[in-house]
Amino acid sequence: MKLTVYLAGQIHDSWRDEVKAKAQHKKLNVDFVGPQEMHDRSDSIGEDILGEQPGNVYRDDAASSMNNLRTQVLMNKSDLVIALFGEKYKQWNTAMDLSTALTMNKPTILIRPESLHHPLKELSNKSTVTVETIDQALQALGYIFE
Amino acid sequence: MKLTVYLAGQIHDSWRDEVKAKAQHKKLNVDFVGPQEMHDRSDSIGEDILGEQPGNVYRDDAASSMNNLRTQVLMNKSDLVIALFGEKYKQWNTAMDLSTALTMNKPTILIRPESLHHPLKELSNKSTVTVETIDQALQALGYIFE
Amino acid sequence: MKLTVYLAGQIHDSWRDEVKAKAQHKKLNVDFVGPQEMHDRSDSIGEDILGEQPGNVYRDDAASSMNNLRTQVLMNKSDLVIALFGEKYKQWNTAMDLSTALTMNKPTILIRPESLHHPLKELSNKSTVTVETIDQALQALGYIFE
Amino acid sequence: MKLTVYLAGQIHDSWRDEVKAKAQHKKLNVDFVGPQEMHDRSDSIGEDILGEQPGNVYRDDAASSMNNLRTQVLMNKSDLVIALFGEKYKQWNTAMDLSTALTMNKPTILIRPESLHHPLKELSNKSTVTVETIDQALQALGYIFE
Amino acid sequence: MKLTVYLAGQIHDSWRDEVKAKAQHKKLNVDFVGPQEMHDRSDSIGEDILGEQPGNVYRDDAASSMNNLRTQVLMNKSDLVIALFGEKYKQWNTAMDLSTALTMNKPTILIRPESLHHPLKELSNKSTVTVETIDQALQALGYIFE
Amino acid sequence: MKLTVYLAGQIHDSWRDEVKAKAQHKKLNVDFVGPQEMHDRSDSIGEDILGEQPGNVYRDDAASSMNNLRTQVLMNKSDLVIALFGEKYKQWNTAMDLSTALTMNKPTILIRPESLHHPLKELSNKSTVTVETIDQALQALGYIFE
Amino acid sequence: MKLTVYLAGQIHDSWRDEVKAKAQHKKLNVDFVGPQEMHDRSDSIGEDILGEQPGNVYRDDAASSMNNLRTQVLMNKSDLVIALFGEKYKQWNTAMDLSTALTMNKPTILIRPESLHHPLKELSNKSTVTVETIDQALQALGYIFE
Amino acid sequence: MKLTVYLAGQIHDSWRDEVKAKAQHKKLNVDFVGPQEMHDRSDSIGEDILGEQPGNVYRDDAASSMNNLRTQVLMNKSDLVIALFGEKYKQWNTAMDLSTALTMNKPTILIRPESLHHPLKELSNKSTVTVETIDQALQALGYIFE
Repeated sequence: MKLTVYLAGQIHDSWRDEVKAKAQHKKLNVDFVGPQEMHDRSDSIGEDILGEQPGNVYRDDAASSMNNLRTQVLMNKSDLVIALFGEKYKQWNTAMDLSTALTMNKPTILIRPESLHHPLKELSNKSTVTVETIDQALQALGYIFE
Repeated sequence: MKLTVYLAGQIHDSWRDEVKAKAQHKKLNVDFVGPQEMHDRSDSIGEDILGEQPGNVYRDDAASSMNNLRTQVLMNKSDLVIALFGEKYKQWNTAMDLSTALTMNKPTILIRPESLHHPLKELSNKSTVTVETIDQALQALGYIFE
Repeated sequence: MKLTVYLAGQIHDSWRDEVKAKAQHKKLNVDFVGPQEMHDRSDSIGEDILGEQPGNVYRDDAASSMNNLRTQVLMNKSDLVIALFGEKYKQWNTAMDLSTALTMNKPTILIRPESLHHPLKELSNKSTVTVETIDQALQALGYIFE
Repeated sequence: MKLTVYLAGQIHDSWRDEVKAKAQHKKLNVDFVGPQEMHDRSDSIGEDILGEQPGNVYRDDAASSMNNLRTQVLMNKSDLVIALFGEKYKQWNTAMDLSTALTMNKPTILIRPESLHHPLKELSNKSTVTVETIDQALQALGYIFE
Repeated sequence: MKLTVYLAGQIHDSWRDEVKAKAQHKKLNVDFVGPQEMHDRSDSIGEDILGEQPGNVYRDDAASSMNNLRTQVLMNKSDLVIALFGEKYKQWNTAMDLSTALTMNKPTILIRPESLHHPLKELSNKSTVTVETIDQALQALGYIFE
Repeated sequence: MKLTVYLAGQIHDSWRDEVKAKAQHKKLNVDFVGPQEMHDRSDSIGEDILGEQPGNVYRDDAASSMNNLRTQVLMNKSDLVIALFGEKYKQWNTAMDLSTALTMNKPTILIRPESLHHPLKELSNKSTVTVETIDQALQALGYIFE
Repeated sequence: MKLTVYLAGQIHDSWRDEVKAKAQHKKLNVDFVGPQEMHDRSDSIGEDILGEQPGNVYRDDAASSMNNLRTQVLMNKSDLVIALFGEKYKQWNTAMDLSTALTMNKPTILIRPESLHHPLKELSNKSTVTVETIDQALQALGYIFE
Repeated sequence: MKLTVYLAGQIHDSWRDEVKAKAQHKKLNVDFVGPQEMHDRSDSIGEDILGEQPGNVYRDDAASSMNNLRTQVLMNKSDLVIALFGEKYKQWNTAMDLSTALTMNKPTILIRPESLHHPLKELSNKSTVTVETIDQALQALGYIFE
């Protein structure tokens, strides 16, 4: 059995590489998908395709339509969503992706430092599993294959 | 025709009162529902019902189960969700409620100051309508009744 | 038993008034809802609420978000959709509303002059009922109450 | 990951060949499906199978049942729908296919010349992505694989 | 609590009147709906509305579109479907209505003489309740209100 | 706003009366529904309606079809399910009703003595809220109306 | 693209062999599935597995649970349902399978002799395609692959 | 055709090995999945991943989130659920998994000794098939492939 896992969350660091490396090390039969991780590309993709827009809000709107296309295709294909919240960014997208997955009856793993539990408490309570570290998320993922 | 509208968003100020007063002034046939607005009650409701919990994360988890019960009942009853994002708080709950509504095929109005457009761009693009002020949201709501 | 009926179709003439008058004359227990029928308001509603936009495409996009909000709320409330196609306009919105209703398992009545059958043949074949005149649509609607 | 993409739109020219050639050139892992592109066959398929019908409306109705069978099978299999609107034809079928896909939670790319934005504004606003050219649609499709 | 009950089955006798009278006698809070019971009207309704058709199959197809419109509206409104099979007719419509209700997660009561059990065995096994007489169906319906 | 609440659980004592009395005392605007509470009637209802069956398994099967009819109608009408597990009985029906509600996206309150937590841990984790007493369940229900 | 097609209908002759042979001759990439075709096995399967039952109705009920298991698994896997009605049998199962497929949004082909159009008119009107012969059904199936 | 079958039920003995061995002997093309069968691991998995919890209820809640993650992923992938009830344990999880499958329109086989029929009568009545032994379940499973 092979699982497809969507990795929702910030695109400001390389946490997805850590997830992938550790999954490979554990020999989990998983394909990982996720958002565009090159931040500049993610912000400019609307104008890259549609040309210059008349201001930042329009630029953002054009970019987000491309990002939403990508996310919707890949999440529809996924068996499971892992969502990581960090301390630095607002990450409303992460909450959006996680809630979308939950409402579509997709199982989810939420990763957040304990310090973020309070503002994330309702999302944590709705998620299938909540953990604090990537290692714990990998253990939860690995448990499915035991 | 009467509509039931869920007001998702921060519970740190009285923006819902403003919405209700303005809707009444416009004589819109709307019932408003929403989360518990007394912040302390919202945080303590788990322990209020279940008794003391062994630490903050457990306290939060107990509270959030009660808050999620309330939100799920009321949102299932709603025809429309208005979600307000402000500059001060992380409001992951607001993103959660908005995404849940969108995935359930409920129409939505997102309110945010223009300054927040960038981090909210994907949510804004998925929402049925995005506005900047409560007055604009009321105009959009009123348009349904024209 | 009272039915709510969404009247999809052109907003360039007063065909909805004819439908309503004839339904009243037949004493059908029906509430009719539909799109904004004041054409100028329908086109300007985005700028009316959000302020001037940087060009026609943006103006149209702002207006359509308000029109889509209205349609989604009212169609979710409807038991039946009547969609009228006339010879003069492209009426892609009418096809959109009709297909949305069909996909949501809402019964539909398509009205079109025989001259339009060819380009509408697939939509006609998918619709629950196809007729040529408003009078026929009213007879079909009345048949539900017999 | 391989995607199946339904190409909705006019069958009066060879735009699908252009899409396929460009996707191959970009080495996108995509299977394209779509309606019958031989216009005469599409119009006569009902009589080809069922025999002569008693007039044009009946002929069209027979043909459309075969076309709807084909579209429903192929769209159910698709991960994404690309819908192209051109200036020459009414293309209510394209609006029908696009709306069906949107209501089924399938991501969509709408292609239309800017000149058509006004009559397509509500459909454009509901679509995941709107572009003006086939090249832009391919870039959006390619972005999913980046 | 009031229930709406769709009465599927033959329209060749007055079994629905018996159901209604007995429900009234038991003072059950139920609204009954169902197909057109005037057989001739049910067969001619297509031509009554659309005018003469070019042969019996076309006449039937026109009539059935009107009957399907009626059934779909009324069944969508129903909480429960009672389906009666008799020995005289093929009643594929009854099987159609019953299966549609079962697939839509609507509870069902199947009434059939024991003599028909064999050809109805799969439908009987899928139905929520199977009984042999109208009196038994009324008892089952009444049990919901106990 | 009025809520309809299904009370799933054992029918061997009068816990539902306690729930109803306490809800009335709190003036909650709630209609309570639930299974047949007269145990003998619940066991004999199949034979009461269908006549004697050829053995206990067949008797049980006949009774359960009537009980399932009742539950399905009433649960479809409910906004919320409260499920009580006691120490004495196996109550697989309670687990069945609770899981059905959860899968249908209905919010739930699970009541169980702490002593039962271990065998109910997965159901508890999936339920919206878990409490230990009827009083706590009423407080959770009341919280929705605050 | 490979399609899985469920062949609903009578099991009293070898019409499915004809379908399979003709599909192979046309080189259609199709897997056919369907009900148990050995009539005796289909009737005795309940007792074959569960042992002797206390009468014919119980024997039939046991058999039908096994047949329904088979049909549900195979139909869930299918992309398309072909349903054949013949003149000899009541074939309520065929109507059941066809309606189940239609309600699950699976495309369908109904085959019936013209003589059966009247009693099948509503089912025919709801089906995606109606034809009179197996050859026509194969042409319709083949059209999907053109 | 290959089927994926979820084996719900007690994890206190090796009944799943018997199922797998017998399926292999019958050469059924089936992949079996199911819950964690190492009882201690199933109980400790929460603390194994998340660290020590402040008491048994919290320990159980942590474990159950991991078990629910596993079950949800695997059940979403399954075509069929076989649920075994034994005499020794309460097995509310088995009832939960079976009801979840039924509500998701997955076909089910319930295995229970006749002695348990009474408390399981409603679940048995809702299940697609009920049998008493593993051998019978395998025969039912094999019947799908005949």
